[in-house]
Amino acid sequence: MASQVLVAANRGPLSYALSDDRTLSARRGGGGLVSGLSAALAEQPGALWICAALSDADREAVRRDVSEPGVRMLDIDPTMYDDAYNGIANSVLWFTHHHLYDVPREPVFDAEFRRRWASYVAYNEAFTRALAEEAAQGARVLVQDYHLALVPGQLRQLRPDLRIAHFTHTPWASREFLDMLPEDVRSQLVWGMLGADVVGFHTWMWAANFASGATIEDERGIAQASFPKDGRCGVDHRRSAGDGRYGVKRVTSVDVFALGVDADELRALAHRPEVDAKLAELRAEVAGRRTIARVDRTELSKNILRGLLAYRELLAVHPEWRGEVVHLASAYPSRQDLKVYRDYTAAVSELAAEINAEFGTKDWQPVLVSVKDDFARSLAVYRMADVALVNPVRDGMNLVAKEIPVVSEAGCAVVLSTGAGAYEELREDALTVNPYDVSATAEALHAALSMPAAERAERTKRLAAAATALPPAAWFTAQLAALEA
Amino acid sequence: MASQVLVAANRGPLSYALSDDRTLSARRGGGGLVSGLSAALAEQPGALWICAALSDADREAVRRDVSEPGVRMLDIDPTMYDDAYNGIANSVLWFTHHHLYDVPREPVFDAEFRRRWASYVAYNEAFTRALAEEAAQGARVLVQDYHLALVPGQLRQLRPDLRIAHFTHTPWASREFLDMLPEDVRSQLVWGMLGADVVGFHTWMWAANFASGATIEDERGIAQASFPKDGRCGVDHRRSAGDGRYGVKRVTSVDVFALGVDADELRALAHRPEVDAKLAELRAEVAGRRTIARVDRTELSKNILRGLLAYRELLAVHPEWRGEVVHLASAYPSRQDLKVYRDYTAAVSELAAEINAEFGTKDWQPVLVSVKDDFARSLAVYRMADVALVNPVRDGMNLVAKEIPVVSEAGCAVVLSTGAGAYEELREDALTVNPYDVSATAEALHAALSMPAAERAERTKRLAAAATALPPAAWFTAQLAALEA
Repeated sequence: MASQVLVAANRGPLSYALSDDRTLSARRGGGGLVSGLSAALAEQPGALWICAALSDADREAVRRDVSEPGVRMLDIDPTMYDDAYNGIANSVLWFTHHHLYDVPREPVFDAEFRRRWASYVAYNEAFTRALAEEAAQGARVLVQDYHLALVPGQLRQLRPDLRIAHFTHTPWASREFLDMLPEDVRSQLVWGMLGADVVGFHTWMWAANFASGATIEDERGIAQASFPKDGRCGVDHRRSAGDGRYGVKRVTSVDVFALGVDADELRALAHRPEVDAKLAELRAEVAGRRTIARVDRTELSKNILRGLLAYRELLAVHPEWRGEVVHLASAYPSRQDLKVYRDYTAAVSELAAEINAEFGTKDWQPVLVSVKDDFARSLAVYRMADVALVNPVRDGMNLVAKEIPVVSEAGCAVVLSTGAGAYEELREDALTVNPYDVSATAEALHAALSMPAAERAERTKRLAAAATALPPAAWFTAQLAALEA
Repeated sequence: MASQVLVAANRGPLSYALSDDRTLSARRGGGGLVSGLSAALAEQPGALWICAALSDADREAVRRDVSEPGVRMLDIDPTMYDDAYNGIANSVLWFTHHHLYDVPREPVFDAEFRRRWASYVAYNEAFTRALAEEAAQGARVLVQDYHLALVPGQLRQLRPDLRIAHFTHTPWASREFLDMLPEDVRSQLVWGMLGADVVGFHTWMWAANFASGATIEDERGIAQASFPKDGRCGVDHRRSAGDGRYGVKRVTSVDVFALGVDADELRALAHRPEVDAKLAELRAEVAGRRTIARVDRTELSKNILRGLLAYRELLAVHPEWRGEVVHLASAYPSRQDLKVYRDYTAAVSELAAEINAEFGTKDWQPVLVSVKDDFARSLAVYRMADVALVNPVRDGMNLVAKEIPVVSEAGCAVVLSTGAGAYEELREDALTVNPYDVSATAEALHAALSMPAAERAERTKRLAAAATALPPAAWFTAQLAALEA
């Protein structure tokens, strides 16, 4: 019999709502990954998903001992949670892995950081304790993402019998940025990850960064990236026993599981009546013009500003496109509690307005910015776009680049950044650009708009094939298989 | 007979002034490197220093054919010069090599960048043409710094008979930052440098970054870092002949010449009467308290803000120092034509004022910021400081860290960033810190203030010995010798 499977992730597959009469109701979350994972997990007898309670209703459910089968929520102190989740995971680790710092001023590792880091450690420990309690002998544990980077190391100490995998959905920082962290924090992070038997990433770029950063020698032990005979990448490590001697050598495999799209599910979603309605609206709006589309959270890593600058340069350098193209920029607000995100969001609106003022005419608005997070509208954009602009400075995978070719109706030329994880699989049929090179991006947009329809359709077909190579369920199964190896 | 020596540098050893009656007079520049280089160059028969005319008076001198022996100034169009010097060298190359970008917004490589880059190419060509005209058969050419990175490659084409060295006074960008440049610009930069027989850096950190970034394969040719048998680092390269074939293999040596201090000259400067007077003033001002000193341009790379944050944390965490220590922060304005520098300068003043408001008393002002570029005062600070804070995020060498131990009277504990080039030579006797780790910097300041006087004096003696190992004249001679090898 296969061993038990446990998933640990900050966000769970469901959330609770509290009605006026204080009745609790559970709601399953959407999104390709969560639904794919839930489905795959449901096939595993005795499987358990451990997650944090994210709202007052979730915490109330934990206190009332309400639960759904296969899910355990952890009631974590809200202040500690905020310090760990916002103060460390999303402000420090996210910025480090995506290289987002304004280096002369950030990061600052001071006493306040130390306080938050202690919360991050404790938040990871809460997951570790729950996993140690719940896991059957020899169970397989899949730990998700940078929020829980310390769990593998902590869990290894408590439960050496378990098989542990960790998957990082973001990029992994280059050595240059990882080394900005205080030495002991970097050491905890690396040794936390090395507690896993397998650490997984979306691409070899991030896997290689991890292996390079995990080549380390400090009081916790000694670790060295290795490339064994079968060509698989790994890190050999020996923990220090504290008396100048080292424990037994262990190996953490470093592997790539490039998350893809579930084509059937996505196409079904993209052809619901509400999407058809949005599509009709959009078609009326653009009035037969070509469209360049982008769909992103307004996230610093998504590079929306340089995308707009490239579009402006396109209109300046290739005036033949004036009046002939519309840039549909879905850029819905994100993390507006942080000033740097509010400033960025404002800068996006200002620049779009500038472009409209500079080039717009009575009949033509060059940029249409949509700030509403409207999945149906996004799917309609996917179906109709002539060109997709996916130009992040750095992005773990970027599923938009994979989703668009799958639902595109007449074919869509994808302008794709070398900094997107998806670059590794899609580079041959996308038009690839250095995300800092606005002029090259403008030229790629011109080439994309100029691409013959037949070539565009051919490329889109191949892009869709690459994008659907490893849908969520298969992605999950591949990681379970790697844990057996 | 030894071959002719030529130096090419943006700034020359002298400048001209134009009096009211339009008479030109020449003035020799100060500064350890320029005077050291001038002296060494004077010993070489037929030596020539080629530099840009930097002012209207300089340009007037060129037009009137006025010149000093051994110096040739180039009259470069002021607009082109501004694009090359400010627009590229100091805004793009400086930021790239020092990792100073606010990555979500900068750099932006657009049409305006392309225009400026063309000026940078032309400005390099102006130096190349002058060198090609002036150099005797088989002459040795020493090209200085990031302003002139393309000269070696250009000159190699015109004058294959010359021996060419290039020295970079800044760090060299990590691959991560170098790869932000547009591909063809990065290629021009790397191949420009590879025109040299020897490329020199202040430390192995920067040399290794160069070798890694110069491992390249593109339309210009193929290059690969190599570590030959004698342990010296180099780059093997073959230029593409354009027909699918490659030219003959050439090797560029990558070497380290760690510029040091001329002890005699510096001590003489530090004991002039005007410095004694400043010292008496400063002693009265600090009234017997301990001093933590820093002396920097207000440059984004110098990390003055995190230095102040560390000082604040020191006062918060170790209240025993309140009233007992004064932070003498010389931070004189620089590049105030750029908004990001004006903002940074303002932020330094604001933070210093905050600290003074938070901890200051009737009798004690915790931080004294000096914004005047006053070399005599800086030398007085060097002589009296108990602790030197040298915490740049990234710095080619940082001569302040080397100068202070040489003139310190009672010994000075040096808190030194791992990002300073000087770290490689001074690490054993300095207190070294991660420049992003404000808490660790605060603890290092505490340790430095607490260091017994005898230990401080001993360490200072060893720091001074390391700092004076390769004074400017010897540094220059070592590069000439490397060109003979």
